[in-house]
Amino acid sequence: MAGNTIGQVFRVTTFGESHGVALGCIVDGVPPGIPLTEACLQHDLDRRRPGTSRYTTQRREPDRVKILSGVFEGVTTGTSIGLLIENTDQRSQDYSAIKDVFRPNHADYTYEQKYGLRDYRGGGRSSARETAMRVAAGAIAKKYLEMKHGIAVRGYLAQMGDVVCELRDWDQIEQNPFFCPDPSKLDALDELMRALKKEGDSIGAKVAVVAGNVPPGLGEPVFDRLDADLAHALMSINAVKGVEIGDGFAVVNKRGSEHRDEIRADGFQSNHSGGILGGISSGQQILATIAMKPTSSITVPGKTINRFGEEVEMVTKGRHDPCVGIRAVPIAEAMMAIVLMDHLLRQRAQNADVKTDIPRW
Amino acid sequence: MAGNTIGQVFRVTTFGESHGVALGCIVDGVPPGIPLTEACLQHDLDRRRPGTSRYTTQRREPDRVKILSGVFEGVTTGTSIGLLIENTDQRSQDYSAIKDVFRPNHADYTYEQKYGLRDYRGGGRSSARETAMRVAAGAIAKKYLEMKHGIAVRGYLAQMGDVVCELRDWDQIEQNPFFCPDPSKLDALDELMRALKKEGDSIGAKVAVVAGNVPPGLGEPVFDRLDADLAHALMSINAVKGVEIGDGFAVVNKRGSEHRDEIRADGFQSNHSGGILGGISSGQQILATIAMKPTSSITVPGKTINRFGEEVEMVTKGRHDPCVGIRAVPIAEAMMAIVLMDHLLRQRAQNADVKTDIPRW
Amino acid sequence: MAGNTIGQVFRVTTFGESHGVALGCIVDGVPPGIPLTEACLQHDLDRRRPGTSRYTTQRREPDRVKILSGVFEGVTTGTSIGLLIENTDQRSQDYSAIKDVFRPNHADYTYEQKYGLRDYRGGGRSSARETAMRVAAGAIAKKYLEMKHGIAVRGYLAQMGDVVCELRDWDQIEQNPFFCPDPSKLDALDELMRALKKEGDSIGAKVAVVAGNVPPGLGEPVFDRLDADLAHALMSINAVKGVEIGDGFAVVNKRGSEHRDEIRADGFQSNHSGGILGGISSGQQILATIAMKPTSSITVPGKTINRFGEEVEMVTKGRHDPCVGIRAVPIAEAMMAIVLMDHLLRQRAQNADVKTDIPRW
Amino acid sequence: MAGNTIGQVFRVTTFGESHGVALGCIVDGVPPGIPLTEACLQHDLDRRRPGTSRYTTQRREPDRVKILSGVFEGVTTGTSIGLLIENTDQRSQDYSAIKDVFRPNHADYTYEQKYGLRDYRGGGRSSARETAMRVAAGAIAKKYLEMKHGIAVRGYLAQMGDVVCELRDWDQIEQNPFFCPDPSKLDALDELMRALKKEGDSIGAKVAVVAGNVPPGLGEPVFDRLDADLAHALMSINAVKGVEIGDGFAVVNKRGSEHRDEIRADGFQSNHSGGILGGISSGQQILATIAMKPTSSITVPGKTINRFGEEVEMVTKGRHDPCVGIRAVPIAEAMMAIVLMDHLLRQRAQNADVKTDIPRW
Repeated sequence: MAGNTIGQVFRVTTFGESHGVALGCIVDGVPPGIPLTEACLQHDLDRRRPGTSRYTTQRREPDRVKILSGVFEGVTTGTSIGLLIENTDQRSQDYSAIKDVFRPNHADYTYEQKYGLRDYRGGGRSSARETAMRVAAGAIAKKYLEMKHGIAVRGYLAQMGDVVCELRDWDQIEQNPFFCPDPSKLDALDELMRALKKEGDSIGAKVAVVAGNVPPGLGEPVFDRLDADLAHALMSINAVKGVEIGDGFAVVNKRGSEHRDEIRADGFQSNHSGGILGGISSGQQILATIAMKPTSSITVPGKTINRFGEEVEMVTKGRHDPCVGIRAVPIAEAMMAIVLMDHLLRQRAQNADVKTDIPRW
Repeated sequence: MAGNTIGQVFRVTTFGESHGVALGCIVDGVPPGIPLTEACLQHDLDRRRPGTSRYTTQRREPDRVKILSGVFEGVTTGTSIGLLIENTDQRSQDYSAIKDVFRPNHADYTYEQKYGLRDYRGGGRSSARETAMRVAAGAIAKKYLEMKHGIAVRGYLAQMGDVVCELRDWDQIEQNPFFCPDPSKLDALDELMRALKKEGDSIGAKVAVVAGNVPPGLGEPVFDRLDADLAHALMSINAVKGVEIGDGFAVVNKRGSEHRDEIRADGFQSNHSGGILGGISSGQQILATIAMKPTSSITVPGKTINRFGEEVEMVTKGRHDPCVGIRAVPIAEAMMAIVLMDHLLRQRAQNADVKTDIPRW
Repeated sequence: MAGNTIGQVFRVTTFGESHGVALGCIVDGVPPGIPLTEACLQHDLDRRRPGTSRYTTQRREPDRVKILSGVFEGVTTGTSIGLLIENTDQRSQDYSAIKDVFRPNHADYTYEQKYGLRDYRGGGRSSARETAMRVAAGAIAKKYLEMKHGIAVRGYLAQMGDVVCELRDWDQIEQNPFFCPDPSKLDALDELMRALKKEGDSIGAKVAVVAGNVPPGLGEPVFDRLDADLAHALMSINAVKGVEIGDGFAVVNKRGSEHRDEIRADGFQSNHSGGILGGISSGQQILATIAMKPTSSITVPGKTINRFGEEVEMVTKGRHDPCVGIRAVPIAEAMMAIVLMDHLLRQRAQNADVKTDIPRW
Repeated sequence: MAGNTIGQVFRVTTFGESHGVALGCIVDGVPPGIPLTEACLQHDLDRRRPGTSRYTTQRREPDRVKILSGVFEGVTTGTSIGLLIENTDQRSQDYSAIKDVFRPNHADYTYEQKYGLRDYRGGGRSSARETAMRVAAGAIAKKYLEMKHGIAVRGYLAQMGDVVCELRDWDQIEQNPFFCPDPSKLDALDELMRALKKEGDSIGAKVAVVAGNVPPGLGEPVFDRLDADLAHALMSINAVKGVEIGDGFAVVNKRGSEHRDEIRADGFQSNHSGGILGGISSGQQILATIAMKPTSSITVPGKTINRFGEEVEMVTKGRHDPCVGIRAVPIAEAMMAIVLMDHLLRQRAQNADVKTDIPRW
């Protein structure tokens, strides 16, 4: 009930606060016999890690993940996998400035209304630091999906502010600190980031995630459709305010005759639907985009109140990302991988015996 | 696992096919002592019911709901509530045209890949007819939310094709067959519908849902955030391709200094966040919008294949809505109500004792 | 949360009160392509049905089950299956005698404490009439287990009062109204029943359930062990006060050297463990026994109070079973079948790829 | 699905193997504002800890638990609580003797059938070492139940072999290493243990658990009855083969007129039902007993096979308890506390508003 678990068969439960002792998670439902080492998980953690470029927060966390159980002689055993990352750079600092103040557009006010108290150190559980464990758990899913099914889950920065980054070259994405697939936009992104730093402001972003080679049949009608579960998983990432599958909001002024993906003997002729029909994967690429709000941790002063109802002016100090969309790329990949992994295992449970000779492409 | 249940504490499980004997659901977790009659549920069912205007499918279903359990002497008993709607207008017809053919952009292909077979009569379980039970269950949630907490969940048509309908007057919405809140747009909508009928085509739509008077504190970090669960519930509605909370995709090119909702002694100064911060309700209005794709059941011929891989041309006959967004309004309300009801009860479980004297507005 | 659902992948949700309109359930997670008709379910319902012998309640219910969804052209489609049984013999009667009185050892007092009110007609939801839907859902599981895996789930009356019935002949069980496997005990059982009727009293019983041909590997450590889930399912049957797996309470004074089941090249040499080791099926017969309390609906007067705290004397009138253990046999079978079915599908989800060449017998 | 989670609202997820790096768990759903320190948990861990008397295994584990999250300034925050115990005494040893052999009555054979491989070091995940985390999580539940509701959950050794220990004095239980409530039986227990050690054999036991001051109303009909969930939780403990509520198997030859607990103005006149009626707590003491099998880790040689199907003779070496029933007392308490805590929170979710003026005692 309390919300720290995601998934049904492949199930991830997390804990940890921004400035607590450690972050951890338990990954349950991993099939046995899968080669798994800490190094497998570290790659994606490093992609998400703070302090890796001048465009992201300067908090320095090595984010070294330890596997505490569920792996024996280098392979998974089928039992629950415990993962741990110790927090090291919890700067001892004076929190009196935010202890009693509700930072605007942060979770301070709502946590306090819900729980009657909050861990105010760096946002506590509401901090995006929590997403490190999503990435670690997602890396297990990605590994399994890739190894057993050749499924690749990849994301990129699709837009930041007014800078639109089109998918030109998958290989470019890991070559720059923005996860930008369009090299011609790197200068514009750099310029935007410099301007934001100067102004002490932040900006929103759009991130795209794509899964290729997904078999048809994943997704459980009617409530646990694949698109519904993706929407849940992606919207659960901090700062996400919108989720689209396929054409998304562009369908609003489309005709049925334009939008439908016709099928010919060689397969689907387009992919407006984003690879999901009736909540079930069609075998086409799964396409999702998310909208990330501009972080509210900015140095432009803003009005808010404290817990006594008094108006105060707030300037968020500390180390923050001017655009949380950048580091969200590996997080979004992780969430899509977790959902696909879960549905792949769910599909097997009920439909393991299904054999069809219907065309697949 | 098999996906026909939504909710944790307030839990709805449904069954039924478009042309089967009946639709039904079990609503579990309703608090005892709530006055409930079939008439309470019928109002929303009538709003969703087919055949009520010339703009929607001409299938004629009275959609009479029966309460089979869980209510005694006019009030809920706390036990599971069984609901049933018999199908009456399952036109006996010749299905040979679609039996072996995968209608483009329908669930035919994916159901068959998943299950190896499908109930091809009117789409079977993948038909939007299934949503009748969502509306019935949602009506119980709406009733409870309204009666016990004064929470009102209301929706409207925000856009159809290029016709944007702004929220001018809540009272207008039930006065026209489009759930349109802007009387000045009724002619344009009527015209668009006529054109579509003539062309045998369909159109997409945007629907907005708003919940007022929601107490702060609903939503369970980190995965079962209120926005994540709303995204799940709304994306699970047939034909939905996008979900936004608050400003949604408009955040992508917003600055943090613009987007954050400042707080003063008299409360929040704006509601860009859509009433949810850190996944928890803030006490402001909950705002969500969804994108509905244009239905693929159109008479414009389209290319597809049959189960033997042969290319065929498809014209969808039968009785269909040219814009599924219209009847989606009560469905979207129902889904939001179900999520709010569930989180209201969940919040009580863990946090019943929390008392704060932090300002609320 | 509210407790009307059992199972994870194979999931059964029920509703219905003793004297309400109807009983029903939704069975979710049934694999597609399984032949299923109402007649398949009726056999076990008839075995549980009241009024079939002079030893059980004289309420006469045809218990005709209807399949409302999830089956098309005679086979399951993989979508949720709706089942319905209408109540017909809800004798219109005067309930004033029990309306305000808490019958001793009934759920009257606890329901009222929990919900603040109760459906007092025939016990409402707390009546064993609810178990009809367990039997219907269990019949689907039994059908699948038998057809796809050759698994047979069978029960028998192991003891009633002091009359112990040993398993001598499976074929005898269906030949007598007691589900007694030992023909030499039929007279003693008949005599005991006559004595109870005369005295207006009731008696406890022990029921055994056995599943044969269960593959090794079912059960999920550490909490959802097969034995733990069986204990849950069996203890959830009305009137059950104890559950044993294998030797059960007889282990208390056994030595390890006596109790352990040795293994030789031809297999296990005994089955003290009841076919479950470490919470996982071993391939041996699954053995469970349950203790059923004597029903409290007896005509021997007893002391109790009414809702105003006043002491009253209570005689339960109406139509009741002097030994609920008799009709519990098909119910216990159903519950074991539901658990095995669920774990069979769960096992596939995570471990579908596991292949071993370890000996099986 | 994979079984390492128990509970719905109060939810415990565990990981860890006998000879792995560490054991851990995540406790979710703990209400905020509860004082909690590592010392609160250590007391029960010490009661369960190995190596504390000559009657239990000589493995020496300090079992120091660390709280990694969810507690801030000494009180719970309402977020998930991460707990960790490092393994220290994983004796580096030669496992070749058991690597390929299935110890009789152990989980070796079934784990290998389920997963295709196993962590053979000390039983891996199937070892009772896993129960340390149950005790830690249960200690949180016990603390809450005691502090907020005055509920005390206590257990004792009720029988070992033929030595029956009656509940004479709660205060005696913690005064001896057997958790024996009857001082007159201490010599007999000691003698039995000495004999077993000499013979290299083990013995079964019966453990009783009692919860006092439990409010009426806990338990969710029809499947998640309090007794059913207790049966699940208790049967999930290693080596448990039977669970009884109240009179348990003694009901089999009881009459209804004997077994029913009559009620008078001053309350229930007896407690044969063990404090649960219709699956819901009645306000009386909750009484449960469990049967623990004699451990199979004995030095009396036994027949078994290896993974190649060859017959071998097996002597289990290592450090083992001759009667696992002794250390099971705190484990059984923990499991009952977890179930009560979960149902207490569940009860609030749906029934928080229920007020009755029906008598309670």
